[in-house]
Amino acid sequence: MTAPTVLVLDAEPLPRLGRLTGRARVVHTDASGLAERLPAADVLLVWDFTSSAVRDAWPGEGPRPRWVHTASAGVDHVLSPALLASDTVVTNARGIFEQPIAEYVAALVLAMAKDLPRTWELQRDRAWRHRETQRLAGTRACVIGSGPIGRAVARTLKALDVTPALVGRVPRTGVHGPGDLDRLIARADWVIAAAPLTEATRGMFDLRRFGVMQPSARFINVGRGALVVEEALAEALSKRWIAGAALDVFRTEPLPPDSPLWCTPGLLVSPHMSGDTIGWRDELGRQFVELYERWAAGRPLVNVVDKKRGYVPGH
Amino acid sequence: MTAPTVLVLDAEPLPRLGRLTGRARVVHTDASGLAERLPAADVLLVWDFTSSAVRDAWPGEGPRPRWVHTASAGVDHVLSPALLASDTVVTNARGIFEQPIAEYVAALVLAMAKDLPRTWELQRDRAWRHRETQRLAGTRACVIGSGPIGRAVARTLKALDVTPALVGRVPRTGVHGPGDLDRLIARADWVIAAAPLTEATRGMFDLRRFGVMQPSARFINVGRGALVVEEALAEALSKRWIAGAALDVFRTEPLPPDSPLWCTPGLLVSPHMSGDTIGWRDELGRQFVELYERWAAGRPLVNVVDKKRGYVPGH
Repeated sequence: MTAPTVLVLDAEPLPRLGRLTGRARVVHTDASGLAERLPAADVLLVWDFTSSAVRDAWPGEGPRPRWVHTASAGVDHVLSPALLASDTVVTNARGIFEQPIAEYVAALVLAMAKDLPRTWELQRDRAWRHRETQRLAGTRACVIGSGPIGRAVARTLKALDVTPALVGRVPRTGVHGPGDLDRLIARADWVIAAAPLTEATRGMFDLRRFGVMQPSARFINVGRGALVVEEALAEALSKRWIAGAALDVFRTEPLPPDSPLWCTPGLLVSPHMSGDTIGWRDELGRQFVELYERWAAGRPLVNVVDKKRGYVPGH
Repeated sequence: MTAPTVLVLDAEPLPRLGRLTGRARVVHTDASGLAERLPAADVLLVWDFTSSAVRDAWPGEGPRPRWVHTASAGVDHVLSPALLASDTVVTNARGIFEQPIAEYVAALVLAMAKDLPRTWELQRDRAWRHRETQRLAGTRACVIGSGPIGRAVARTLKALDVTPALVGRVPRTGVHGPGDLDRLIARADWVIAAAPLTEATRGMFDLRRFGVMQPSARFINVGRGALVVEEALAEALSKRWIAGAALDVFRTEPLPPDSPLWCTPGLLVSPHMSGDTIGWRDELGRQFVELYERWAAGRPLVNVVDKKRGYVPGH
């Protein structure tokens, strides 16, 4: 039997894939070669999760990979209508990013409560200026996204004595439905977006939603940039409808140097790194090899995306 | 019966002391009037915890306050040899600062793990530069100081899946003695000073101790500035014996504008504010009034400092 062909989007050398030697023909490509190589591939590994090349290059008809794995939690960058309509299985990197992202959110929440950005500005000016800061314990968070990442965020905040409320696509035990969203963000001290990007969530944080929040509220986005209408967030900050915000993800990444978001007062910008702790590439590589072993042995895959919903359902 | 005289060091208007009206004669003073007014006072409330005026002004002989309360956790700034030798009772603000300081330490630890100071430097330069950060879960902390503050710090870090070790003056259940200190800091990712300033702890973080720590370790001081030999910390940072540090307290406060600590690479400076959350002055005032009610009724005081040890013992 010929070894299956694993096509890897992204020329960057991958850790841990050496373990596939002799068991798969690994072919690397960048976005420009993707369309040409897709028909001959059995498996597509989307290592470059910043690329939307798969959406454009996915073949409408004829031979195509039977399995697509993306080394990311979100799958919005691969799910074209053609892939959605096909019987190709899509899996994601569930299990890798949850704890790091939850810690990152806790870091941002605490930094804002304790006014650390201002403290370090004052340090540069050698200015000793005592301020009173916020007590985090007893505050309320609303976490939008009830998947593994949102749940990890809620768990970590709860460990810091914050009361979290989770909002998901459908209400269930411990999770509020979209109908509760406005009521929950209206009383939250921290509004945290950790949802997948789907047609239901695109642009959900618009001017009206920021208007519902408390003037003392802070907004954090670690989901996908397009969850947020960025101009509306900038306006809400400038009008002091909310007290501050932190974005780790943006509609356009990398954020262009001339974007006004870099210097919007009250806005903290970080370069899509909330989940990326030391060793994350190794973990992603190891996870793919484990999934490949299942797939090659004909065993059921895990982390299978519900393509219609746009994420991996269930707990 | 004449109402007792409560002398308050610091002319700043105090919240909540209005409740003493008719039950005490409240006299305010600054440091310059302290020596003159102390003999006529029954109670001294040290509201200005940054002042060491009590050490200098305490009367050696003759009439003096029977009770000194300091609106701070540390008592090093009031404990003169004369006060130590007298039968005057000293109390502190135990119960007010624990949770805020623990949150502040968590904020610093997470900010360092997630490289937030560098992220916000890069934001000023409009530079999108992705980095890998540290996973906090699974790291180890050594917390020096096993009083209520050190214990709250350890509890909060543990909630973030950090493994804490507590070091106190005497070993007991859950607390290591000073003999374990070097071994514990040698393997800690986070070394956190939350000890009272006593003759046993002054200068305990010297060049030798920083040399024991791991090159990847970070040091945080939320106790008292004089626990640390500041020149040694700067040297350890410049030689990369440790990876970073954050000081909230200093040998001289406010930190003078010409101090080299302001711009020591790898050192985060904050102006002695770790415990001061919104409403803290109200809480301190309310606490003093409650203690005063006990004292005036002849009931035993709480938060009584063991003057020889230099802190409130117990637990």
